Amino acid sequence: MEKGALLYEGKAKRLYATDVEDVLFVEYKNSATAFNGLKKAEIEGKGILNNKISTLIFEKLKQHGIESHFIKSVSEHEQLVKKVDIIPLEVVVRNISAGSFAERLGIEEGTKLKRPIVEFYYKNDALKDPLINNEHIDILGIASKEEVETITNNAFRVNEALRKIFEEIGVVLVDFKLEFGRDKEGNILLADEISPDTCRLWDAETNEKLDKDVFRRDLGSLTDVYNIILSRLGGK
Amino acid sequence: MEKGALLYEGKAKRLYATDVEDVLFVEYKNSATAFNGLKKAEIEGKGILNNKISTLIFEKLKQHGIESHFIKSVSEHEQLVKKVDIIPLEVVVRNISAGSFAERLGIEEGTKLKRPIVEFYYKNDALKDPLINNEHIDILGIASKEEVETITNNAFRVNEALRKIFEEIGVVLVDFKLEFGRDKEGNILLADEISPDTCRLWDAETNEKLDKDVFRRDLGSLTDVYNIILSRLGGK
Ligand SMILES: Nc1ncnc2c1ncn2[C@@H]1O[C@H](COP(=O)(O)OP(=O)(O)O)[C@@H](O)[C@H]1O
Ligand SMILES: Nc1ncnc2c1ncn2[C@@H]1O[C@H](COP(=O)(O)OP(=O)(O)O)[C@@H](O)[C@H]1O
Ligand SMILES: [Mg+2]
Ligand SMILES: [Mg+2]
Repeated sequence: MEKGALLYEGKAKRLYATDVEDVLFVEYKNSATAFNGLKKAEIEGKGILNNKISTLIFEKLKQHGIESHFIKSVSEHEQLVKKVDIIPLEVVVRNISAGSFAERLGIEEGTKLKRPIVEFYYKNDALKDPLINNEHIDILGIASKEEVETITNNAFRVNEALRKIFEEIGVVLVDFKLEFGRDKEGNILLADEISPDTCRLWDAETNEKLDKDVFRRDLGSLTDVYNIILSRLGGK
Repeated sequence: MEKGALLYEGKAKRLYATDVEDVLFVEYKNSATAFNGLKKAEIEGKGILNNKISTLIFEKLKQHGIESHFIKSVSEHEQLVKKVDIIPLEVVVRNISAGSFAERLGIEEGTKLKRPIVEFYYKNDALKDPLINNEHIDILGIASKEEVETITNNAFRVNEALRKIFEEIGVVLVDFKLEFGRDKEGNILLADEISPDTCRLWDAETNEKLDKDVFRRDLGSLTDVYNIILSRLGGK
């Protein structure tokens, strides 16, 4: 497969065309960003780690019956994915209170929620990805009622599978962010990445943070903890 | 009816017990506040204006078949209401983009929405009344699914009635905030106040702001525009 024109450069990845219409090259960058881009760094090795972790997770999700845009990994920091029209929502699932949720609602970080919940943030850098409700999604014309229902159900299904995947390796899935898109036929498909950049992951024994909060909160070496996740998932 | 002990002093009103168990005295204060209490002023005559306007609106809503906590006005700045357990939600209905909604979603102030929408804010001064979604309401144990449905339906019904009431006096109802409570029997009842403090009201001809935005944005005399609303509603 040929790597074609650069289509989009985001904060963490670059998208390239390929010689197949519906297939994209995704290149994972070494950039780390937090707080809507306010905090930034280049971290040697991060792109490779996220490509490898994301690859393993999409493969394991598939074994749990969950389809995604992921086709295959083609180099240490690149993968092929099915092209979709991204729906501009950051779909967040939470099992335990943390981060902005803990602050917004005054629920102490670490508090287990009585059930998982879904939140939608409007993926819009200029507006700083604000929390929105289902009414806002309708007014903005982001997605239909049926699509929002499909996305919500899929997000909960992904949560059940991911929780098992991480439980098996001694990691608690606190919360995570998903993105979905529409494929050529208009079907909703899980896209983007699933990595320690997009999940909060705590060691089940020690509660040690094994995710981007290490960078956000200056808690140590990002690549050290991403390497822990990668090796526990069976990668290297 | 005897005015008893002061039960609660809020930003805009004082609540007193009466000699009847389920009845409260509400005293409207002259305080104006905005931006979660960051901006404050005492404005002579404001309490009287809001008591009179709120009284007229609750009376007119009743004529439109909408019940509320309102019993009667007992002085220029005081009314009797049925006591409820307030549900800590600011229930906002929007017809036209304005204020925090315009900023959050990047929809220019003045844009008519394709349909009215409801938003819920968690009424909590320490957390600065954050926007929340239905999942948060459940997690916080604020109200049951059925109660949220009842509140949503009632909020839309109030909107239809209020729009007519204001349309008749040449005023556009842009958005407004309601509070609901549970009465002794557990029934959801419309409570608090409805006034230019809690509604965005624009003159239908000139678009002049006839509400608290005059105070928030330093656009002129608050009592001048509240007096316009009062007199158009048939009060004095
Ligand atoms: N399968 C896909 N098809 C098209 N776009 C995708 C796909 N998967 C992810 N994207 C988009 O690729 C972009 C690049 O990723 P990223 O660097 O994370 O960007 P951002 O800074 O916008 O989050 C994102 O906007 C993401 O929504
Ligand atoms: N019928 C009622 N029974 C009990 N409390 C009420 C009723 N109507 C309004 N309240 C409450 O009275 C309080 C006083 O009003 P206000 O000065 O606006 O307070 P706040 O600063 O909390 O908004 C508010 O907390 C409001 O929720
Ligand atoms: Mg991204
Ligand atoms: Mg109030």
